[in-house]
Amino acid sequence: MGVSYDTIRFIDGVAEILDQRALPGKIIYVKCRNAEDIFDAISKMKIRGAPAIGIAGAFGVYLGAAASKARDFKGFKREVKKISAYLASSRPTARNLFWALERMEKTSRALESGSKKDALAGLLAEAMKILEEDKAICREIGEAGNGLIKKGARILTHCNAGSLATGGYGTALGVIARAGNKIKMVYVDETRPVLQGARLTAWELSALGIPATLICDNAAASLMSRGKIDAVIVGADRIAANGDTANKIGTYSLAVSAKYHNIPFYIAAPVSTFDLSISGGEYIPIEERSADEVRKVMGKLITLKDMPVLNPAFDVTPRHLIGAIITEYGVIERPGTGKIKRMIEGK
Amino acid sequence: MGVSYDTIRFIDGVAEILDQRALPGKIIYVKCRNAEDIFDAISKMKIRGAPAIGIAGAFGVYLGAAASKARDFKGFKREVKKISAYLASSRPTARNLFWALERMEKTSRALESGSKKDALAGLLAEAMKILEEDKAICREIGEAGNGLIKKGARILTHCNAGSLATGGYGTALGVIARAGNKIKMVYVDETRPVLQGARLTAWELSALGIPATLICDNAAASLMSRGKIDAVIVGADRIAANGDTANKIGTYSLAVSAKYHNIPFYIAAPVSTFDLSISGGEYIPIEERSADEVRKVMGKLITLKDMPVLNPAFDVTPRHLIGAIITEYGVIERPGTGKIKRMIEGK
Repeated sequence: MGVSYDTIRFIDGVAEILDQRALPGKIIYVKCRNAEDIFDAISKMKIRGAPAIGIAGAFGVYLGAAASKARDFKGFKREVKKISAYLASSRPTARNLFWALERMEKTSRALESGSKKDALAGLLAEAMKILEEDKAICREIGEAGNGLIKKGARILTHCNAGSLATGGYGTALGVIARAGNKIKMVYVDETRPVLQGARLTAWELSALGIPATLICDNAAASLMSRGKIDAVIVGADRIAANGDTANKIGTYSLAVSAKYHNIPFYIAAPVSTFDLSISGGEYIPIEERSADEVRKVMGKLITLKDMPVLNPAFDVTPRHLIGAIITEYGVIERPGTGKIKRMIEGK
Repeated sequence: MGVSYDTIRFIDGVAEILDQRALPGKIIYVKCRNAEDIFDAISKMKIRGAPAIGIAGAFGVYLGAAASKARDFKGFKREVKKISAYLASSRPTARNLFWALERMEKTSRALESGSKKDALAGLLAEAMKILEEDKAICREIGEAGNGLIKKGARILTHCNAGSLATGGYGTALGVIARAGNKIKMVYVDETRPVLQGARLTAWELSALGIPATLICDNAAASLMSRGKIDAVIVGADRIAANGDTANKIGTYSLAVSAKYHNIPFYIAAPVSTFDLSISGGEYIPIEERSADEVRKVMGKLITLKDMPVLNPAFDVTPRHLIGAIITEYGVIERPGTGKIKRMIEGK
C-alpha cells in the first residue's frame, strides 16, 4: 500500500480509525472503545468507503459484545443482534456494512454455549478475518481489472476507492495501482461536497507515485470531449441484482457523459457490495446528508448561512451505462441479472 | 433589481466595482482610478460575468484615456487603441469584453479634432451608454425568454448570470426573475471552483424572494434523472457563428445530461456575446486559470499544496445540445449559422 497508514487497525482491545476528515493535512487516529464510538466514526465519516465501513462495523459488533453484561448465552446473542441493528443505522446506503454485520451475527448465532471469553474471541477473529480478506480481495480486483487497462491509459476516477476506502490497496485505485506503468495519467475529480478526491485520492496517488491531476467535478465532461479520458473507473456502495450501482454523488453524471463520448465506464467493487435482495437501483436507499456539508467547505461558509440545500450523498447509475463490473471473482461485462447471479453462485 | 447593489457604478471620475470575491459575506466597493485598476479587477475576478466585464472594460478605456499625456489628437487615438489592447488581454474568453472595447475604439476613431475634454466626454458617454443599454437588454431578454417558462417550472442554473454578471437584472436570472411566480424552484449549482452559484446566484435569488435550493454540481444529473428539473437556463461567455457556446466550466456536462433526459437546455445572452468571426466553438480560446483556484476554497487548502491541477474556466457546448438561445432580439430555437445570421442582420 502506497500510503503507509492503516485505515483501521485493532490494537490492545481498541479499534483505531484514521480520521479521514482531517486528511491530508493531519494524521489523527481516533480510538474507538465501544460500539457507540464506531457508530460515531461511521456516521460522521471519520471512516468512509463501503468496504472500510463494513470492516469498522464488524469491529463495532465485537466492541459492543465485549461490553455485554448478559448473564447467559441467549442474552449475549440477543445483544449482538441489537448492536448489529444499531450499527446498521449509522449509514443507509453501503451494502458492505450490512454484509459485514450479517457475518458477525452469523458468527454469533453459530457459537456453541461456552465462556463469554470464547464467544468474544470468535467475534474478534471474524472481524479480523473480514479485514484480512479485504486486503486479498483488493489484490484480486486489481488483477481482474488489469486486462481492461491499455498502455498509456488516461483514467478518470471519482471520490476515493483506494486504500482509505478498504482494508487493502483499494478497488478502483487497486486496478490503477496494479496497472502501474501502463497508466499515463489519473484525472481525479475533487468530489464535492466532502472532497474525497481532492483530499484522499490525490494524496494516495501522489504517495504511490502515479501521475495524477486534480480537476473540479465540473471539468470531467469537458475533458472527455477533448479526448483526454480513455476510461472511467469508480467504486460502488451498493449494486442491485441487475447491476444498477449506487456510488458517490456525481458518478451518474460521469456515466452519462462517458456513454455520450463512447468512453468505457467501469465499476470496481468486492462481491460484498452486491445486494441480490433488490432487483434494481430504484430500491437502493439514498442517504441525504446535512445542508452544512454543502454550505461550508473545511468550516468556511460559502453561501448564505440558511440557504436551502439538497445534499444526496449518492446517485444510482443504471446498468446499461456500465461497461463492466470488476470484482474479485472476475469481470462482468455489460452486467445484467443473469450474469451477476451466475458469477456469484458459480463460486 | 433584487439585490440592491450596483455591480459597477461611476462616481466623481472613479469606477466603483462591487468586489464579487467577498460576496455574500462582505460588501466592498473597489475604486478603479485607472486602466490598470480595471485590468486587475477583471483578471482577478473582482468583477465577472461576460456583460459586466464588457462594461468594466469600457470604463477602463475611459480611465486610461483620461490619464493620456498625448500632445495631439492622433497620439490620443493611438493611445486609446493601446489601452484597449491592454484591457483585451485581461481575460480571453468573454466576447462581450472585446465587443465593448471595439465600441470604445470606434467612438475614439469617430472623434473629430477638438479638445481633449470633449474627446473624454465622448468616451465617458459611450461607456455610460453601454451600461445603460445593458439594463434594457436584460429586460428584453427576460421578456423574450418568458414564453419558454411554464407554470410550476423547476429550473436548474449554473454559475451566475444574474444582476452581478450584468448592468441590469441578468440574463438567465433575468428570464427567471421575469417569470416570477411561474417558478416553483430554482436549483442552483454551486459552480466550483469559484462558487459563483453558491456565493452570488444563491444570494440574488434569495433577495428576489424566488424559491431556490443550492446543490453541488455533482447532484445536477441525478436530479434530472429523478424528474426534478424541467429546464436548464445558463448564460454565455462567447457564442460562435453556428451557435456553439462557451460558458462556465460544467455547462457542457449539464447540456449532455439535459439531452440524455430530454430536458430543454437554454442559453440566455445579449447579442454582444456572439462572435460571428468564428465559425464554431472549436475556435473559442478557453482560459486556463491558476491551480490554487482549485487547490484552495476560500483560502483553505483542500488537497496537497503542490498537487498538479487542470483548471479550465470554461467549456464549449455544441449547438446541437442547445434548445434555444434567448437574446434581446428574440429567441433562436435550435440555433444554427443561418438563423443566427438572419436574426442579427435582420435588426
